[in-house]
Amino acid sequence: MYDIDKVRGDFPILAREVNGKPLVYLDNGASAQKPRAVIEAVTKAYSEEYANVHRGLHYLSNLATDKYEAVRGIMARFLGAGSEEEIVFTSGTTEAINLVAYGWAMPRMGEGDEIVLSVAEHHANIVPWHFLRERQGVKLVWVETEPDGSLDAEKVIAAITPRTKLVAVTHVSNVLGTVVDVKRITEGAQAQGVPVLVDGSQGAVHMPVDVQEIGCDFYPVTGHKLYGPSGSGAIYIKRERMAEMRPFMGGGDMIREVSREAVSYNDPPMMFEAGTPGIVQTIGLGVALEYLMELGMDNVAAHEARLASYARERFKEMNWLNVQGDAPGKAAIFSMTIEGAGHAHDISTILDQKGIAVRAGHHCAHPLMTHLGLTATARASFGLYNTTEEVDKLVEGLELAHRLLG
Amino acid sequence: MYDIDKVRGDFPILAREVNGKPLVYLDNGASAQKPRAVIEAVTKAYSEEYANVHRGLHYLSNLATDKYEAVRGIMARFLGAGSEEEIVFTSGTTEAINLVAYGWAMPRMGEGDEIVLSVAEHHANIVPWHFLRERQGVKLVWVETEPDGSLDAEKVIAAITPRTKLVAVTHVSNVLGTVVDVKRITEGAQAQGVPVLVDGSQGAVHMPVDVQEIGCDFYPVTGHKLYGPSGSGAIYIKRERMAEMRPFMGGGDMIREVSREAVSYNDPPMMFEAGTPGIVQTIGLGVALEYLMELGMDNVAAHEARLASYARERFKEMNWLNVQGDAPGKAAIFSMTIEGAGHAHDISTILDQKGIAVRAGHHCAHPLMTHLGLTATARASFGLYNTTEEVDKLVEGLELAHRLLG
Repeated sequence: MYDIDKVRGDFPILAREVNGKPLVYLDNGASAQKPRAVIEAVTKAYSEEYANVHRGLHYLSNLATDKYEAVRGIMARFLGAGSEEEIVFTSGTTEAINLVAYGWAMPRMGEGDEIVLSVAEHHANIVPWHFLRERQGVKLVWVETEPDGSLDAEKVIAAITPRTKLVAVTHVSNVLGTVVDVKRITEGAQAQGVPVLVDGSQGAVHMPVDVQEIGCDFYPVTGHKLYGPSGSGAIYIKRERMAEMRPFMGGGDMIREVSREAVSYNDPPMMFEAGTPGIVQTIGLGVALEYLMELGMDNVAAHEARLASYARERFKEMNWLNVQGDAPGKAAIFSMTIEGAGHAHDISTILDQKGIAVRAGHHCAHPLMTHLGLTATARASFGLYNTTEEVDKLVEGLELAHRLLG
Repeated sequence: MYDIDKVRGDFPILAREVNGKPLVYLDNGASAQKPRAVIEAVTKAYSEEYANVHRGLHYLSNLATDKYEAVRGIMARFLGAGSEEEIVFTSGTTEAINLVAYGWAMPRMGEGDEIVLSVAEHHANIVPWHFLRERQGVKLVWVETEPDGSLDAEKVIAAITPRTKLVAVTHVSNVLGTVVDVKRITEGAQAQGVPVLVDGSQGAVHMPVDVQEIGCDFYPVTGHKLYGPSGSGAIYIKRERMAEMRPFMGGGDMIREVSREAVSYNDPPMMFEAGTPGIVQTIGLGVALEYLMELGMDNVAAHEARLASYARERFKEMNWLNVQGDAPGKAAIFSMTIEGAGHAHDISTILDQKGIAVRAGHHCAHPLMTHLGLTATARASFGLYNTTEEVDKLVEGLELAHRLLG
């Protein structure tokens, strides 16, 4: 049983008001709020148990190291990785995808090699590949979404040629809410010898993930969207791919030996973690993942599916509201425009006056916005603590915006 | 007046015991403890004021953005930068130096170009340059320290040739405590048209820094050593150098426009900050810097100079103790071995039993350890909250170690 009142009680910020109204936080796609357990773990780490990791030998350093390194196993369990040695900690998805671009792709791709992307990717899963285009002449091959916002796995597979070296697709679109059949894409790509990166920034937040079942080669996630601290994250990298990678950032911890003439590197995954890491944010992320697994990602997914279904019904009443994406089983992410309203920012501003936080803009997805023929939308993105009552408040707010702007 | 009791009262962790003894934390060179103001700012940010930055338009996002962006100005003030636009936020020094290596050095250096380094550099200021050697044939030119642990600025300048493209030196050695005359080095290098990176990881912690007075081109600092959160940091980059750089990590926030065929980038410093940043840790770092400026870095330096002077006197009593580095004005960082003691780790373990946290190992400085003819030392590194009584406890602990091991 999913006890929504108890869940909401776990998040201190949800008790606050914004502009004199109870906060209705619907900007989870940008970043999620943190449960008390995470905040308390961070406070405790700094107040009672802090030291640098991997370096000490003294009591506090050993304690911090144990707590930090335990998160590798927690993350492996959360993502269904076969081994915690396939988990590299990063500051988030952006660093993780850049790690793949610099550490795996750049040394092995040249002029005319191809990367297949969907047009629905977030800039974090586009710009690193543009670097390869700009610097090494790699060709980006784009697959469009369908009119309902879905992404046809077979079209992604059909875009693969003998020059394709990587397929990089999102698990869940941060604009459309579309859930992509990444298992089918991986199967089709790997049958042609092409590795697959699945951007899990949104996917891992909304549903159970099993990277071994998906079969993908790279699966980055970001901690701040997973109800964990800002500046935390990780990437699952299949062992064979990891063995193919060269280091990305250089510094302490990632080396074995350094001399004036030469350097040798630590074994993976340490080879890819340079310098003092995000110690406390990673410890906090571990607590967030434990919290999610305690709730059960199946239960979270079911709760959010109820919200999505209810929201879709309510939105149908409003024939002046355009919602982007209506793919079957879409996540509770709704990018909206109002007929006659000049700019999505105005919608967001009106909602904000009612205490409702949504994001307005291009959502770091320019190519998708261009494909949709839009410059901006107002996006309501739901999380595990949202309620149908909050859907109703959103609907009221949108009706007000329509009266004022439409 | 420097009120050490009040200062100590600001750091919650200093009230704890380790192995039944009051904690004597002398591992500040690895990472510093956090004042209550920082911990509370982090807690408040997550509990009451959290949202993603630069993206919202809603109340919480604007609030978080204002608090986050204010830190750029605080950091500019702390380092004496001319403009906050010369400050790039990073996850620490390691990412910052890699940003310079990938964004500035790699596109402009080739076979036979030279980088001048001191042998006393931390791996964070070595390994990124080894990447240029490995991948692009750049030559690393090493300058040795003197027998007393000092680094002769004139020898660094003399190592510059017409092929030199960069000088990269530390401000303060994390092993020897040596304070380097980086102003003189910068003056000499720039007279020959060579930019200078000064690694401020230790320097900015122990003394007032004015990057304009030093005149250097790059000055990275790390937040966790500056009494701020883990995973925070920044780099000062002179405006002219920033204009020469290409982006390092790709993702959200650092772009202006992205299409299927092309990408254009945001203005510096945003061009170098990809994706959701370390929001809360940066806010916490701002509070740490305010705390330091409130104490006065001059006062911190004077307090630590008293500690260093007292420790040097006490250590002289122990003719079986070898302390590495005795340069005039050295910082309160003491790397030690005991005659007859097999391994520095044993010293650290004995001290730990007395609640004294020191670090044993190579301190991420292999080339220096080789130069010194050592594999490891036990390092006591002092911070702004340490006391002469703690020096006495360290001396007692070392005497015990000598009795047990020597």
